[in-house]
Amino acid sequence: MDVEPIIANTIKDIRRHVASARSEGKTIALVPTMGALHEGHASLFQAAAACDFVVASIFVNPTQFGPQEDLARYPRSPQADLALCRDNGVHAVFMPETEEMYPPGWLTEVSVGKLDANLCGRSRPGHFTGVATVVAKLFNIVAPDKAFFGAKDYQQTVVIRRMTLGLNYPVEIVVCPTVRHGDGLAVSSRNTYLSAEHRKQATSLWGALEMVASLIRRRRPPTEEVVATIREHLATHAPEGVVDYIQIVDPADLTDVRTTKRAVLVALAVNFGTTRLIDNVLVGP
Amino acid sequence: MDVEPIIANTIKDIRRHVASARSEGKTIALVPTMGALHEGHASLFQAAAACDFVVASIFVNPTQFGPQEDLARYPRSPQADLALCRDNGVHAVFMPETEEMYPPGWLTEVSVGKLDANLCGRSRPGHFTGVATVVAKLFNIVAPDKAFFGAKDYQQTVVIRRMTLGLNYPVEIVVCPTVRHGDGLAVSSRNTYLSAEHRKQATSLWGALEMVASLIRRRRPPTEEVVATIREHLATHAPEGVVDYIQIVDPADLTDVRTTKRAVLVALAVNFGTTRLIDNVLVGP
Repeated sequence: MDVEPIIANTIKDIRRHVASARSEGKTIALVPTMGALHEGHASLFQAAAACDFVVASIFVNPTQFGPQEDLARYPRSPQADLALCRDNGVHAVFMPETEEMYPPGWLTEVSVGKLDANLCGRSRPGHFTGVATVVAKLFNIVAPDKAFFGAKDYQQTVVIRRMTLGLNYPVEIVVCPTVRHGDGLAVSSRNTYLSAEHRKQATSLWGALEMVASLIRRRRPPTEEVVATIREHLATHAPEGVVDYIQIVDPADLTDVRTTKRAVLVALAVNFGTTRLIDNVLVGP
Repeated sequence: MDVEPIIANTIKDIRRHVASARSEGKTIALVPTMGALHEGHASLFQAAAACDFVVASIFVNPTQFGPQEDLARYPRSPQADLALCRDNGVHAVFMPETEEMYPPGWLTEVSVGKLDANLCGRSRPGHFTGVATVVAKLFNIVAPDKAFFGAKDYQQTVVIRRMTLGLNYPVEIVVCPTVRHGDGLAVSSRNTYLSAEHRKQATSLWGALEMVASLIRRRRPPTEEVVATIREHLATHAPEGVVDYIQIVDPADLTDVRTTKRAVLVALAVNFGTTRLIDNVLVGP
């Protein structure tokens, strides 16, 4: 039978619960989330069960939303989230209010240099500083041995790895594969915003990525050909999708590359109405 | 009899020694320094003895020096430093090479917003980002219960307190009083650069601060009168000193204030040749 997770709303409380688990010799996992939990998060909780005590944080972090972005309408479903945590063996849920994480006078920021110059960082200035900052804070609050993130937000995983290394956090970063619906669309909290028609067209994001992954493995074409192939595929299969970016980058530092001879990350962002979807595929050498 | 401190040159090594002390139930103190140790540092080590295991770090942190500053000629005296550590009960000295702290590809920075807009931050752009970053790294490497800093670098203590709070480090910041020579000059690694004549004139920094502290306590004059009084005192007693700044600020957020009715920090920086000296006095309400 699943046990109800402990709920902690304050930093003091979650620290107390973690310290108690730690004093019993348990290893600690952290899965940072913004709630609106889905199968992707469930897969992270399952991976985190490799540790003895799994902490999920649920916090819609305002510092990673731009002024024009969807902070206010970001989906919130605390009851369903807690049920999903319980069903996937989470031991403690840290659900702070905004003021608990950012009291008045809060000013400290963690930035990761040029890693945010490309991909989502380009269209979301400040986003990855907000991400790096809140994850640094969560690492200090929970002091986990391992922290778990999904590969769908690939740039986020690179930023967090760099931040962890750059500031010498003794935390192992574990990146789990993207979870997909049966038709290939990456599971995302934002999918719920899509109209039936947009939901259908959205499957072509992964369709395009799968196609070019196979193309790259077959004959390593120059990147502009890959981008043109994706653009054409989307124009046909997602006529209402507005491309934000299609980029081929070095998976290590996210800089643009011209050939696909070494390992590359193919990443894209497409807007359907006001809903922005992202996806990516890593193609080895 | 004093025991030779453990010397650790790598992050892995110092973590091992700290973990061993921690496993014996010992509390951990960190005293971050740039070496060239003097009586001021000795007073920090003595305060740190309130913890069971005292770690001193000796690292001339390049990221807190500007391109025009004195990184290359910053004094280095490792043998004397180790003797001073031993004589003051330090248990372990962390002395990493630059590459150990900043390996290639290092990009992460911790910044503390407007706290560096005034005082030394104004004439040393980037300095306090470098300070906040290296201290954040040291906190993750050593995981101390308490960390000790001197009040001479007042702005630094405010930046570090803010960083610690802003990123939720579970570390208590302890600020120790400035140690002074018999004639009042604040002890500093940079004093050794002064010519005999400049050394004599330099005593007027504290002379001026003591005088205006007494003036403020007596009749709370407007800040411009305080600044003018200091400027006049220095013009008379330190004719070869070139004032970088004389500022009266709110001790909490370092913003300029106009009156001395509440607690104020009076701070100044004066250049003698290429040697920059700082000092300050906190005057309560």
